[in-house]
Amino acid sequence: VRILDQRALPEAEEWLDCAGADDVRRAIRSLAVRGAPAIGIAAAYAMALAALRSEAGKPSALLADVDRAGRRLLRARPTAVNLGWAVTRVSGAARAAATGGADAVRAAAMDEARRIEADEERAMVAIGELGSTLIEDRANVLTHCNTGLLACGAGFGTALGAVVTAHRDGKEVHVWVDETRPVLQGARLTAWELQRWRVPMTLVADTAAGYLMATGRVDLVILGADRIAANGDVANKIGTYPLAVLAKEHGVPFYVAAPVSTVDLSTPTGAEIAIETRDPDEVSAPRGVRFAPEGTWALNPAFDVTPARLVTAIVTERGIVEPPFRAGLKRLLRTGKGAA
Amino acid sequence: VRILDQRALPEAEEWLDCAGADDVRRAIRSLAVRGAPAIGIAAAYAMALAALRSEAGKPSALLADVDRAGRRLLRARPTAVNLGWAVTRVSGAARAAATGGADAVRAAAMDEARRIEADEERAMVAIGELGSTLIEDRANVLTHCNTGLLACGAGFGTALGAVVTAHRDGKEVHVWVDETRPVLQGARLTAWELQRWRVPMTLVADTAAGYLMATGRVDLVILGADRIAANGDVANKIGTYPLAVLAKEHGVPFYVAAPVSTVDLSTPTGAEIAIETRDPDEVSAPRGVRFAPEGTWALNPAFDVTPARLVTAIVTERGIVEPPFRAGLKRLLRTGKGAA
Repeated sequence: VRILDQRALPEAEEWLDCAGADDVRRAIRSLAVRGAPAIGIAAAYAMALAALRSEAGKPSALLADVDRAGRRLLRARPTAVNLGWAVTRVSGAARAAATGGADAVRAAAMDEARRIEADEERAMVAIGELGSTLIEDRANVLTHCNTGLLACGAGFGTALGAVVTAHRDGKEVHVWVDETRPVLQGARLTAWELQRWRVPMTLVADTAAGYLMATGRVDLVILGADRIAANGDVANKIGTYPLAVLAKEHGVPFYVAAPVSTVDLSTPTGAEIAIETRDPDEVSAPRGVRFAPEGTWALNPAFDVTPARLVTAIVTERGIVEPPFRAGLKRLLRTGKGAA
Repeated sequence: VRILDQRALPEAEEWLDCAGADDVRRAIRSLAVRGAPAIGIAAAYAMALAALRSEAGKPSALLADVDRAGRRLLRARPTAVNLGWAVTRVSGAARAAATGGADAVRAAAMDEARRIEADEERAMVAIGELGSTLIEDRANVLTHCNTGLLACGAGFGTALGAVVTAHRDGKEVHVWVDETRPVLQGARLTAWELQRWRVPMTLVADTAAGYLMATGRVDLVILGADRIAANGDVANKIGTYPLAVLAKEHGVPFYVAAPVSTVDLSTPTGAEIAIETRDPDEVSAPRGVRFAPEGTWALNPAFDVTPARLVTAIVTERGIVEPPFRAGLKRLLRTGKGAA
């Protein structure tokens, strides 16, 4: 499994070769691979690698190895639900093949990982197409973090997929790219992707969003999600919630774009979503450059929760869900795969 | 005139020797000296330097030189009103001394600069003391940008002066320091000052403020101002307005601390305040380190406007003004210097 190391971007395109599940886990943990859908796909292949690399001869021992890898993967990052979703899917497929012997288990795990990737690829294309219908000609779109190909491993991504699709459909679109401190996914990754697709954009500091909205320069906000609770509360990159509050204040539509794999009906509300706290150095010394004086303590929450009441609509591959979200999301998950 | 070069902080303490008004103007323009009150004091000394360095023999020619320096200074930065305020004060004092000859003009200009510095010093102490009454024991205070000694050239500063005064009065205070992108005045300068005064603090990315408020960890916001319009609208460092909207959403008091020299009754509302746009590289390559891909365009507004309705109170050296601000600010400016 080869993973493009997103930590090195945009300065360099470096690839990581992952020989085993633990290599993938480290890549997820260190943000070499990031973005909820991409984490899901990476975790699926990590599970497949765990099955392939296990020397167990009996299906039961092999499944135990796979499950152990799954438990380790789950601890890598707590917020994105796609990780657990992928682990559960591959583990379930492996278990279902156990009667066929160890090789059947290995084949089933790899097949399921491939299926997850293919499913998510189709989902991204559908999200891009559906999301693009929300973007009018000459729209100024504000986005946060990175929700493009890099975050999703497929298509043009979720929220960014909607923007790029609108652009390729011939709409004049301009994107305000939030730099997205502390890890700068906007400045580094979204800017890099939009340059590649030649979508007009302007980078801004995260602090500028209020100014942009107050001066009438934002027509809509569209961004991704790391976990969507059953009631429609959205956990996403830190800084999302302030944008939602500002959008409400200014009557600017606030859209969340994410595959169904990001919806977690077992989490009732945003209050139950674990928020990952990361290394203080991501704040005080980004990209290895110390901003703050030596010895400055920093708090680094990686996500925040946007309450459902601030969300205009959620764009998934199976349709655009409007409030009330609880019923809409439930219906969405019930419709099954082919309902896009 | 010696100026501590704030661009070099916190890595190094470097001093700039300013031989003439133009050196000071460059220091203001380049942010070597920044913060509305400090800009005012620096501009006052720049005017005095212009008078001292002028070789004009006649008062009228000397005043023309001083006025020319004033016009150049005014163009250095558009938003902080203290600049114009100081220029006008020194220029007026110089003009009033013209009947006494050129040397009297020079002496009057220098005297007025010294008086401005002394006035602002007293103002900062008074603001710190008044502001500290708003901070309760065990308060978690969120602040933005730098409003300390560095920004004010005197005392402990305005908003930061209130915090440091509360701390020195024995209150347990903890400060959330917004890093304040793009120029990082929070991470570099506020963290540096609070370390020196040993005030407990935690640095956060600007994106974290919503999370902090939503999780109940902010008791009040206090920050400075670059210009306060007659109706109480406040221009301040970019990112201030989103904090005000968030504070309102969470019922968190939002205080602005500034000397009376920052109040500009000739500006009716925030809509008439010119917002400075600075070099895109401050966003895309902070501290010389390129975050965004080569060729990325960035917009870099340095300030935003917070409408008066979001401001709980304005702390000045002459008292704490509560809404309605128009009447309160007018009364404040009418009471004259000694009314603290």
